[in-house]
Amino acid sequence: MRRRRAARSDSDRRTEALQLKLLVEYDGTRFLGWQLQPDGPTIQGVLEEALATALREPVRIRAAGRTDTGVHAAGQVVAVPVTRVPEDLGRLLKSLNALTPEDVAVREVSIADDGFDPRRARSRLYVYRILTSGAPSAFWHRYTWHHFMPLDVEAMASAAAVLVGEHDFAAFQAADADPVRSTVRRVFVSRIEREGEQLHYRIEATAFLKHMVRSIVGTLVEIGRGERLPSEMAEILASCDRRRAGRTAPPHGLTLVAVRY
Amino acid sequence: MRRRRAARSDSDRRTEALQLKLLVEYDGTRFLGWQLQPDGPTIQGVLEEALATALREPVRIRAAGRTDTGVHAAGQVVAVPVTRVPEDLGRLLKSLNALTPEDVAVREVSIADDGFDPRRARSRLYVYRILTSGAPSAFWHRYTWHHFMPLDVEAMASAAAVLVGEHDFAAFQAADADPVRSTVRRVFVSRIEREGEQLHYRIEATAFLKHMVRSIVGTLVEIGRGERLPSEMAEILASCDRRRAGRTAPPHGLTLVAVRY
Repeated sequence: MRRRRAARSDSDRRTEALQLKLLVEYDGTRFLGWQLQPDGPTIQGVLEEALATALREPVRIRAAGRTDTGVHAAGQVVAVPVTRVPEDLGRLLKSLNALTPEDVAVREVSIADDGFDPRRARSRLYVYRILTSGAPSAFWHRYTWHHFMPLDVEAMASAAAVLVGEHDFAAFQAADADPVRSTVRRVFVSRIEREGEQLHYRIEATAFLKHMVRSIVGTLVEIGRGERLPSEMAEILASCDRRRAGRTAPPHGLTLVAVRY
Repeated sequence: MRRRRAARSDSDRRTEALQLKLLVEYDGTRFLGWQLQPDGPTIQGVLEEALATALREPVRIRAAGRTDTGVHAAGQVVAVPVTRVPEDLGRLLKSLNALTPEDVAVREVSIADDGFDPRRARSRLYVYRILTSGAPSAFWHRYTWHHFMPLDVEAMASAAAVLVGEHDFAAFQAADADPVRSTVRRVFVSRIEREGEQLHYRIEATAFLKHMVRSIVGTLVEIGRGERLPSEMAEILASCDRRRAGRTAPPHGLTLVAVRY
């Protein structure tokens, strides 16, 4: 890759390297996820449209994480290849936010480093929010998975801790996922904590398999309800068998919090 | 009052006293405020409908604070006169939440104390949230007043402190307010604090005049932008003249947090 690039002319390289980097926040409730779809609105779709208008050139953008339908992001990172650098990035930021709907906000715009690839992140951090209360919440229903019954947080925490380290996460990959080269991932953080009426499960890893966080959360909730023992988590992980893990948790509790490079 | 009641028969008194007390949370975004309106949805409207279905009797409810169009509540208190006590309050809570839309949540149901009047509160606590950031937020746009420029929080805090105590708040009453017996109110707390990218203005008082919190916030923001001096707050208050105060802040930054009895 590196060698092929060096063989190209200097002007080619400069053109290729010219990218903007966006930090984007979105409420995924009404979107069919990140990636362009013919069937309905996507974050990529509304951003590409706003960018094309603001930059006066068609763009094809790439994100650090292609979030699923209904999943939110507080720190999605997006690369925008452009033919020339806009004069005033502050003005571009304002224009983009005027052009996007209220549930998609561009928080920062900058010039990306040479050869920046948003997919080549050191890690991604997700949070999954669970509301445990006898009544729903008018403010949190879009961002939490609601459980009427309390969950055993200590049991969930000890099961969550098992996932830290490098493991084959095949047991937590969606059954219908496209084949991937490897299902091994390194998990840096896997922790669940009570915050008021909510439980926040935070997981940071090099990368994630399809529905991985949601399959883990579904399993943790079954442990929290006492339907499984915390010790089963290690067995499920070792089995590499999707049928052993719990149900996939709903998407709306999940938020991509940050991407680190 | 007390004597008149004593003169009535025992059964009259029991009928009159029988009330449920609800703690209600709502996202006011799409409502025309608390109070029943012919022109569109109100919180009172959706709650009365849900209660009539669940209790199988028509009800007319009363709230501690009749919030305006677009204003939210995390701790609205509602009295529901009923002819008989429901057998299972936990089941009633679940029914009500199944019958109300997702942006209205009944958090608690209990039997009200004899002669409970939700309007006779010791105090009401409101919070007004301001977002100060160079870009809007996809999650907070419904609950914050967004300012692109930073505001001088120290100046706002010193002006806010002036309002603590018993004062005539006529300067902060909506110009079109119905005449009230007195415009004197006692303020227990009036404090603004930074919380991350947001400023939270908290005000607790015996009761509030129409648009009082929003007129105060509008004035505080003009002080925060350097358009007025903090010392002007005392002059505006003393003037009892609505034209001296700042513009009325938009409703969506405002939340009724708690009512104390």
